[in-house]
Amino acid sequence: MSQSALFDRIAIVGIGLIGSSLARALRAEGLAGHVACFDADPAARATAADLGFLDSVHDTLADAVAGADLVVLAVPPGAIATVGADLAPLLAAGTIVTDVASTKRSVIDALVPLLPDGVALVPGHPIAGTEHSGPAAGFAELFRGRFCILTPPPGTNRAAIDKVAEIWRRIGSDVEIMDANHHDRVLAVTSQLPHLIAYTNVATAADLEDQLGAAPKSDDVVTTAEVIRYSASGFRDFTRIAASDPVMWRDVFLNNKDAVLEMLGRFTEDLTALQRAIRWGDGDELERVFRRTRDIRRGVIEAGQAGRFIYTENGETEESED
Amino acid sequence: MSQSALFDRIAIVGIGLIGSSLARALRAEGLAGHVACFDADPAARATAADLGFLDSVHDTLADAVAGADLVVLAVPPGAIATVGADLAPLLAAGTIVTDVASTKRSVIDALVPLLPDGVALVPGHPIAGTEHSGPAAGFAELFRGRFCILTPPPGTNRAAIDKVAEIWRRIGSDVEIMDANHHDRVLAVTSQLPHLIAYTNVATAADLEDQLGAAPKSDDVVTTAEVIRYSASGFRDFTRIAASDPVMWRDVFLNNKDAVLEMLGRFTEDLTALQRAIRWGDGDELERVFRRTRDIRRGVIEAGQAGRFIYTENGETEESED
Repeated sequence: MSQSALFDRIAIVGIGLIGSSLARALRAEGLAGHVACFDADPAARATAADLGFLDSVHDTLADAVAGADLVVLAVPPGAIATVGADLAPLLAAGTIVTDVASTKRSVIDALVPLLPDGVALVPGHPIAGTEHSGPAAGFAELFRGRFCILTPPPGTNRAAIDKVAEIWRRIGSDVEIMDANHHDRVLAVTSQLPHLIAYTNVATAADLEDQLGAAPKSDDVVTTAEVIRYSASGFRDFTRIAASDPVMWRDVFLNNKDAVLEMLGRFTEDLTALQRAIRWGDGDELERVFRRTRDIRRGVIEAGQAGRFIYTENGETEESED
Repeated sequence: MSQSALFDRIAIVGIGLIGSSLARALRAEGLAGHVACFDADPAARATAADLGFLDSVHDTLADAVAGADLVVLAVPPGAIATVGADLAPLLAAGTIVTDVASTKRSVIDALVPLLPDGVALVPGHPIAGTEHSGPAAGFAELFRGRFCILTPPPGTNRAAIDKVAEIWRRIGSDVEIMDANHHDRVLAVTSQLPHLIAYTNVATAADLEDQLGAAPKSDDVVTTAEVIRYSASGFRDFTRIAASDPVMWRDVFLNNKDAVLEMLGRFTEDLTALQRAIRWGDGDELERVFRRTRDIRRGVIEAGQAGRFIYTENGETEESED
């Protein structure tokens, strides 16, 4: 165990984009004496083992977490409860459990009743990702310059919170502590709503050809080939967002239902108002809304959140300004 | 006039992002003996003159277009009719008029009745842009590897179409000829719908603090600062789209009302179906939709439309993979 190590053994459960990026970052910074992993998918285990960024890859959850002083659940939100039930009997007192799911209330509700006494739960959510999935898509720099939100339930051991926070800081993230419900509302509007409407826009476009093709009288079918061809005009950015992991996002929407439905209701009201302005030719109202949104962009740029590491099509990582 | 020049004098009317990029590209490729410009805004004229990418900058439309064999209207769609009325009496037979507006039926309807005999109208729409506006934001490579759609009305002089097409090809674009109505439907789904919903999402987020702040009982306000802080999770891409020129986009929506309202209707239906799936916990339906949209992304990447030149915050241009 190197001098900089914060834990003797960290077990990562689920070795997708986030789990494998975290493993790489932990290794790069020497933050654990040993980084072990388990994934329910044998193919993901094999890929992770081949890529060589772990100290050990295990065929069972029990082997992976044996002797771990930190367990990181990096599985989709919908798998947290099941994995938590398998995990709980395996944990010794003093172990810290954290996770990386995009919904936080659901994680607390699922895990708190399961975990034995003396095991601290420090739920976490790194605000980082790409549209690529799986262990090969991960890279150590993913969390650099990004926020990681921790949502420990009231009464959580302070030392456990500090140790988990220190892990994220050492791999380059800014750590924020937040109430889980508040986290879920913030992310509903900054993350889940954009993803849902991007998915919808792409689906609407994809359906145009099929649906119009079914109506032989229509002589002005917009084809999928055309949608792809002219995607540089705005649609392209949506296709990237809408290429994100379908299972993960399914789980996110199912596990943050209330906040998503509230934000969606607000969005639909606002969109309906703009639709009405278009129908009635109310240019002043359109321009008023379009001007307002520029200030937010300025804020994003000033906050340094416009740049990020991106995963390029050829498999390398690079810093992009946007 | 250099050997490669296609026109003796090209007059660009409106020197914003597109007009100034075109001027730079024309100069870089030596496609005109002289590139003149007029802009109704004295500040834009002054900036353009200072930047030095034009042969002449004029205080009146008449001076700019005098002797021009090609006039390019690079004004917002809503200004086309007014500028066209001023322009028509100034044009000699043999002049070609083109434009770069994002809506094409409205341009034809406005200009065809105005233009004198012997003046050819070849409407055009380069599918290229950034979220930045004004003459200083332009750059010569903006159109490289991008499509330019020409929508000449039936009966347009073939030689005029060919000459305008050749301009765009020489500055690096792929030229497509398309019916104006069809263009407007394609762009409604690939460009106008994404912009409208990005504007709406950003406005919804911006309103959260104000609206909730007005309700003193609410103890869980999502602030604008938080929205900006955690924008890396999806929202950021929307803020970039929603930072586009407000006047231009106001005009686009007002001038392509029918197609936009149709596509918006389809989008709202699809979004409502997903909203219902979330409320009823229908994970299979969510996953089905989310999986479908990945194929479209693959098509965008294969079509080479995922890369582009981008205008960075520090004012340089670079090629981005996305």
